[in-house]
Amino acid sequence: MPIEITDVSVKDVRFPTSLELDGSDAMNEAPDYSCAYVVIKTNSEHSGHGMTFTCGRGTEICVTAVEALKPMLVGKTLESFTENMGAFWNYICGDDQLRWIGPDKGAIHLATAAVVNAVWDLWGRVEGKPLWKLICDMTAEEFVKCIPFRYVTDALTPKEALQILKKQEATKAERVAQLEREGIPAYTTSAGWLGYDDEKLRRLCRESRAKGWSVFKLKVGKDIEQDKYRARIMREEIGYDCRFMVDANQVWEVEEAIENMRQLAEFKPWFIEEPTSPDDVLGHARIARELAPLGIGVATGEHGMNRIFFKQLLQANGIAVCQPDSCRLGGVNEVLCVLLLCAKFGIPVCPHAGGVGLCEHIQHLVAIDYIALTADQTDRYAEFVDHLHEHFTDPVRMKDGSYVLPDKPGYSTQMKEDTIAPYIFPGGSYWKNE
Amino acid sequence: MPIEITDVSVKDVRFPTSLELDGSDAMNEAPDYSCAYVVIKTNSEHSGHGMTFTCGRGTEICVTAVEALKPMLVGKTLESFTENMGAFWNYICGDDQLRWIGPDKGAIHLATAAVVNAVWDLWGRVEGKPLWKLICDMTAEEFVKCIPFRYVTDALTPKEALQILKKQEATKAERVAQLEREGIPAYTTSAGWLGYDDEKLRRLCRESRAKGWSVFKLKVGKDIEQDKYRARIMREEIGYDCRFMVDANQVWEVEEAIENMRQLAEFKPWFIEEPTSPDDVLGHARIARELAPLGIGVATGEHGMNRIFFKQLLQANGIAVCQPDSCRLGGVNEVLCVLLLCAKFGIPVCPHAGGVGLCEHIQHLVAIDYIALTADQTDRYAEFVDHLHEHFTDPVRMKDGSYVLPDKPGYSTQMKEDTIAPYIFPGGSYWKNE
Repeated sequence: MPIEITDVSVKDVRFPTSLELDGSDAMNEAPDYSCAYVVIKTNSEHSGHGMTFTCGRGTEICVTAVEALKPMLVGKTLESFTENMGAFWNYICGDDQLRWIGPDKGAIHLATAAVVNAVWDLWGRVEGKPLWKLICDMTAEEFVKCIPFRYVTDALTPKEALQILKKQEATKAERVAQLEREGIPAYTTSAGWLGYDDEKLRRLCRESRAKGWSVFKLKVGKDIEQDKYRARIMREEIGYDCRFMVDANQVWEVEEAIENMRQLAEFKPWFIEEPTSPDDVLGHARIARELAPLGIGVATGEHGMNRIFFKQLLQANGIAVCQPDSCRLGGVNEVLCVLLLCAKFGIPVCPHAGGVGLCEHIQHLVAIDYIALTADQTDRYAEFVDHLHEHFTDPVRMKDGSYVLPDKPGYSTQMKEDTIAPYIFPGGSYWKNE
Repeated sequence: MPIEITDVSVKDVRFPTSLELDGSDAMNEAPDYSCAYVVIKTNSEHSGHGMTFTCGRGTEICVTAVEALKPMLVGKTLESFTENMGAFWNYICGDDQLRWIGPDKGAIHLATAAVVNAVWDLWGRVEGKPLWKLICDMTAEEFVKCIPFRYVTDALTPKEALQILKKQEATKAERVAQLEREGIPAYTTSAGWLGYDDEKLRRLCRESRAKGWSVFKLKVGKDIEQDKYRARIMREEIGYDCRFMVDANQVWEVEEAIENMRQLAEFKPWFIEEPTSPDDVLGHARIARELAPLGIGVATGEHGMNRIFFKQLLQANGIAVCQPDSCRLGGVNEVLCVLLLCAKFGIPVCPHAGGVGLCEHIQHLVAIDYIALTADQTDRYAEFVDHLHEHFTDPVRMKDGSYVLPDKPGYSTQMKEDTIAPYIFPGGSYWKNE
């Protein structure tokens, strides 16, 4: 019997993380990690779960956008989508009236991510496979059929994508076995939030090293003298055998980024993340050119709005490391397109995580990238941030600074109805009493 | 007594234009021209009116986004904003939680446009000046204070902006007098919609010529043979003394755009508008390079999401003509920034119009560009489309293919409460009976 979508519900879930300054950085001073959380109900025992991550205010706009997409799903069968997932993606993004308020960006695209990811989660559950396995089990031809190539064919054709995938096809099983054994390499952002004081920074660095972490990221961008002071603390704690990166969260002008990174060069950062506007392809390329002689790369992507942006970043040699966001790109299909683009251009992918649920998503993406696309782990890590995992029915599991490969069906994005209930905005008990 | 903002209301107004295929093109097959319409009430007799243009579905998302911005306005005084309009703009765009769902793009930025434009309209009314005059009466220093320079200083510094403005300051009055006499040069898109049949296309070309129009635009992109067929019809009707442009509304891939424009070159188009994805700076630059030997320029901008996008388009030599949208950029401040960037790079501005209310906006912008920034009318036109003007209290007035310079206070964006009432969605009488 075909699986029919009978309802799509969406909740505005907000966690009051701003109270502790978890997640604080130079741009996002006091985020309440939140999401528009979508549940797809069907005429079967299976449901699909997807979300788009937000920072508190504005979640209600994404909720309204999900409501606008809902009529495109209800009454349809899962099979009518999965027989051609590329066509499904074009259908969800293709409403000729909704398109105006994007296209492929802003609230409507964030909502697209939630809805598209929920359909993939549903598919994984129906097939009894974790998302990474659902996708890695596809033939190259089936994989390519999922990809939205519109507007990227000048950089990547379906034929080139096929070649990339076919090259790795014969050895996928080896890499699956390896990841099952060793887990997925990761780095931590949990130690270096901007709002933490010196002592907390030192303590978290020490604790993280003890837990097996060897790649660390520090938030910078408030004041260059303070940045240097904190970089010195982190390097004192982690030494120079560990990898160290800095993240400015978009606060600098192009010239300013170059200037400031010259001052931070003595701490030998691997990369500077989000040095300037997330939309500035040419600005990133300029910064990358200027910092190359210092051995510092440029990384960006958590605000990379769509595949067309990433295509250009790659064409312009703007990045050394690519950090796509699972919930800002329009869900799995567009993420896979960006992974293919990066494979073509030889740029490592370290997807953005943190917030709420992003770690749960990206473990699958890093696995897919390694197993099916690149067969290369050089400079490739899943970001890890340690909060809010307790609200998921299948949370990430960490071991010695690596993610344990997920083994439950779906995209690991189902939330616990009972623990999120107080945080439903504005009606949940937490917010009602605020 | 200070003018205090006491309320901000927002309406979802949708006109059923899809019935007649007015506004139909290769991407937007059946738009219902709509807007999120904002009215700012004050403790005085003055109110401010702003909107963001939409295509039907999705307007409710922009309405929700306006509601999210409302608390930033209510209770504030107009003077607290106008004493530093640049700071005001940063304030409206700078909420650290709302920013996540942009930044500076999508629904939240469309809402920003509506709100920011409404404040400017209010200011013009309080000063008793049309918007163009309010701005052209500013000193260069006052003008520069309104501009958001964040993320564009690598292309345009405040000092360079001052120089551009000071150069024209002494002769502004001459140009005001000239525009009062001659009006604002315009071109028409009304003849060439994609959904019109041959006979309607011929008739509208003839009628437009008779009314004094000499610059015509044709929608293309459905099928290249049909495009050539329709281009031939338009050239037959308007001859080769008139200017002719084509507009593909984003439907082509980069390579495909180059290919198709080679085929359309025989009709000698001045430019190809929106040849591909509106986000593809490098794609536009590539197309521009390939088409330059054929004497065809590239134009784009109606989907140009923010000043950072336009900065890059200019840096990459991606366009011969710039077409910013008054309601997609974040209102007057960001539009002025783009006008300054274009003046710096020597690229003519022909703002996007049509839809509902866009013509009412852009007449002011073209006047400002000529009077205060460029003192040059070469290749500079205001787009004109002839529908829905009857819903405005101060509609555009056309004379011999030119806009008559507006003379009423404000931004010409106040709608008639009685004529729009039936089109309020979903409660208005038109939609209730649908």
